Amino acid sequence: MRLRIKELNYRTEGPLICVLNKKDAQNLDIHASDRVVIKGNKKEAIAVADINDGDIIKEGHIGIFYEVANYLGLEKGHVEVQLAKKLESLWFIRNKLEGKKLSKEQINEIVKDIVENRLNEAEMTYFVAGCFSHGMNMEETYDLTKAIVDHGSRLELNKKIILDKHCAGGIPGNRTTMIVVPIVAAAGFCIPKTSSRAITSAAGTSDTMEVLCNVSFPIKKIKEIVKKTNCCLIWGGGVDLAAADDRLIKVRRPLSLDPEGLLLASIMAKKNAVGANHVLIDLPIGTGSKFETPEKIKVLKNKFIKLGKMLGMKVTVILTDGRQPIGNGIGPALEAIDVLNVLQNKGPNDLKEKSVYMAGLLLKMAGVKDSMRKARDILESGLAYEKMKEIIKAQNGNIFTAEQIVVGKFIKDIIAKKSGKVKEINNKKISKICRIAGAPIDKGAGIYLYVHLKDNVKKGDKLFTVYSNSKKRLDYALRLVEDDGPAVSF
Amino acid sequence: MRLRIKELNYRTEGPLICVLNKKDAQNLDIHASDRVVIKGNKKEAIAVADINDGDIIKEGHIGIFYEVANYLGLEKGHVEVQLAKKLESLWFIRNKLEGKKLSKEQINEIVKDIVENRLNEAEMTYFVAGCFSHGMNMEETYDLTKAIVDHGSRLELNKKIILDKHCAGGIPGNRTTMIVVPIVAAAGFCIPKTSSRAITSAAGTSDTMEVLCNVSFPIKKIKEIVKKTNCCLIWGGGVDLAAADDRLIKVRRPLSLDPEGLLLASIMAKKNAVGANHVLIDLPIGTGSKFETPEKIKVLKNKFIKLGKMLGMKVTVILTDGRQPIGNGIGPALEAIDVLNVLQNKGPNDLKEKSVYMAGLLLKMAGVKDSMRKARDILESGLAYEKMKEIIKAQNGNIFTAEQIVVGKFIKDIIAKKSGKVKEINNKKISKICRIAGAPIDKGAGIYLYVHLKDNVKKGDKLFTVYSNSKKRLDYALRLVEDDGPAVSF
Repeated sequence: MRLRIKELNYRTEGPLICVLNKKDAQNLDIHASDRVVIKGNKKEAIAVADINDGDIIKEGHIGIFYEVANYLGLEKGHVEVQLAKKLESLWFIRNKLEGKKLSKEQINEIVKDIVENRLNEAEMTYFVAGCFSHGMNMEETYDLTKAIVDHGSRLELNKKIILDKHCAGGIPGNRTTMIVVPIVAAAGFCIPKTSSRAITSAAGTSDTMEVLCNVSFPIKKIKEIVKKTNCCLIWGGGVDLAAADDRLIKVRRPLSLDPEGLLLASIMAKKNAVGANHVLIDLPIGTGSKFETPEKIKVLKNKFIKLGKMLGMKVTVILTDGRQPIGNGIGPALEAIDVLNVLQNKGPNDLKEKSVYMAGLLLKMAGVKDSMRKARDILESGLAYEKMKEIIKAQNGNIFTAEQIVVGKFIKDIIAKKSGKVKEINNKKISKICRIAGAPIDKGAGIYLYVHLKDNVKKGDKLFTVYSNSKKRLDYALRLVEDDGPAVSF
Repeated sequence: MRLRIKELNYRTEGPLICVLNKKDAQNLDIHASDRVVIKGNKKEAIAVADINDGDIIKEGHIGIFYEVANYLGLEKGHVEVQLAKKLESLWFIRNKLEGKKLSKEQINEIVKDIVENRLNEAEMTYFVAGCFSHGMNMEETYDLTKAIVDHGSRLELNKKIILDKHCAGGIPGNRTTMIVVPIVAAAGFCIPKTSSRAITSAAGTSDTMEVLCNVSFPIKKIKEIVKKTNCCLIWGGGVDLAAADDRLIKVRRPLSLDPEGLLLASIMAKKNAVGANHVLIDLPIGTGSKFETPEKIKVLKNKFIKLGKMLGMKVTVILTDGRQPIGNGIGPALEAIDVLNVLQNKGPNDLKEKSVYMAGLLLKMAGVKDSMRKARDILESGLAYEKMKEIIKAQNGNIFTAEQIVVGKFIKDIIAKKSGKVKEINNKKISKICRIAGAPIDKGAGIYLYVHLKDNVKKGDKLFTVYSNSKKRLDYALRLVEDDGPAVSF
């Protein structure tokens, strides 16, 4: 049936949704939640149908949400609409729910349909549920990793040694990447680092790097940056290195499910897509996440190593302390200040030491002798800082010192109401305050933290400062400081 | 945060959805797909948030879909909006996905949150997935049945013997209910029958009964009807007898999942809610459904009986032939004609015989001797027809004979293109043609079928006639007759 487009300008940030008039839906025997094929001039999309009973969508029209318009590259004109056929991949998802093992071909088909928007949210939810309920064995995990890589973009660098790192779990301020990468690259190794943006935290590495320069580039430009600097610090989401994974992550949110197979595939696919063959994985402990028990962490650690081997990667896994923020700044600008300060030998010591340790391990994996000292030398001699300036320039930036960075103009100090020793710093609460203050979109918003665990604090000492570029948002954030228990307790 | 309502007049026919302006969402730290609490004057709703980046929802406003407006009973004014807390029931759903057994209290909490719209579609999907992946034992199934009944309306009739019947699986034209109920009631037994409307078939019992009279009444009026006639033939969906189940059925659709525990609970909760203590279950075989293998049917049959016992019901399960439509008419008006004709001793024999058999079994369960003959006598003597007229009157109807029923005015005969013996009648295809022709909304639309399995047909014989009240829809339906293999093959 040929229908006229009405662009609704609604954003779901996920599923493709269209709206049909009730009469047209009846003629096509389409029910609410059925999937339809919408054929445009160039592309066709599979969208979930809502039915409109009122006067928003007239007979002969089809309302399309922002994501559909964007996918089709159409905002007006006519499209051909019909009921979509049931997909083969739905049977495979059903099989997984029944506890059956999936073959390489079946996993590939599911991932293909995810990437091509053929599966709706409920269907992907069933896939995640199946993987969670019954688990995936190493073979399935490997097949899923490969399928994600095969249905995404790749960075072909043609280098013998390519290093990479990953930190699981959201520790506020944990911006080691922006120090590790320049150290490793300055040592002469290739480390094409892609990072994510914040989902529920105050800043992802990409959000922080973006304070200094651009982070979103097409594949071709990324290759040029890597060629020039031996590395990059870019946003992975901008190049679809693991498009299927991005979608699966969304449906894992409602129950905060981290099916081990999906988690492993998600992380390792991104490493594989950039061609990494030496990978360091950081698993912070004490974060309150589900990877808390020593047994579970040991199992996960071994699976990372095994999956790495299957993918032709050497993997080292370290367990680090995740009970409190790393560094003092939390939020893009405040973290970027910490990073530049560490690179210039004046930043927070915890951030410096963790970064040196990780860089040292990576250099060791690449065969460098006395690697820990080497990493420290490169940082302390300023070589890493010079490399960082190179990267910033290559990524079209012009901010090279902490002094150039602008933080939020509305500021409020939070003062200790009594004396004592710091017993707990609530990572989640810290993140939440920063987010309400405007981070990560307001780059200058966030928290500067003056205390660490076990510090002795006197009544009247500053605990932390909250920054925002909006008076209203600062007020919202301050209200939260008092609610639901303190961010810093002693 | 106080926001001003903008009613969007969109219907999702399921999830409660609202749309926030991007800036308000950021201030509340709400992401797309998060759930929010919307507090109106009288009620509060939990809705899933979409984020609007454009100009449809201005800052300070909240767009609400039809279902939200309906639930809140609000179309304008202001509401208080905040991020919803994670629910305890989400942990229980997670536990089920991990393969743990759920307690009575946990199941109750999940069902409560479903009925009160606190769980969104993805979360309910995870619950269904957990029940499907790991199954439910009889205790869980019983607890779920009770929870569904406890969180819905009940029909309190205060009778010693209450009969009921249920037919699983969608055989076109299978309108035995409208014959069984008058026979049983005419025999002096109470049978307060609630039925469903069609979801993917050409007509549900309620759609067909609606050709003759009203089917949607409040509980109080239903009790009066039952008091007057000893029975009723009403739409169950109109009285929320199993509200939780109605929602779970929706999320089962994408993968057509029938987790046994949910299926059992779904059917038996509705029987329990009307107080039935003698229940006949009809499981048609040969329909292409998943209950096809003899082993699975045997297991299912025993579970129906066992669950019945736990609920204090006597349950009889029969396996019947589901390979072809029952009766000749398919679609509300055409089926109603068959029913009235059978009640007046002139209808299709297959429909008559199946109805007599089922009514006989029910009477036997109620302790009637020589029950099969009794059922036949009541039907053939016209007593059942008299009872049906009583029911129609009690339900405010005035159509009592087949001649009064109006069928679709646009008609097309489908002719055999060759001679031969009828080998297969495709139930799904028959339903589809009827639906495209307009059934069940267009009461007069549907098919009248002239042949049955194994009939010898000559080239040029009429196979079936398609009816519709819309020329356009008849054309659409006729196009389908030729597509994807024939409805009747020989």
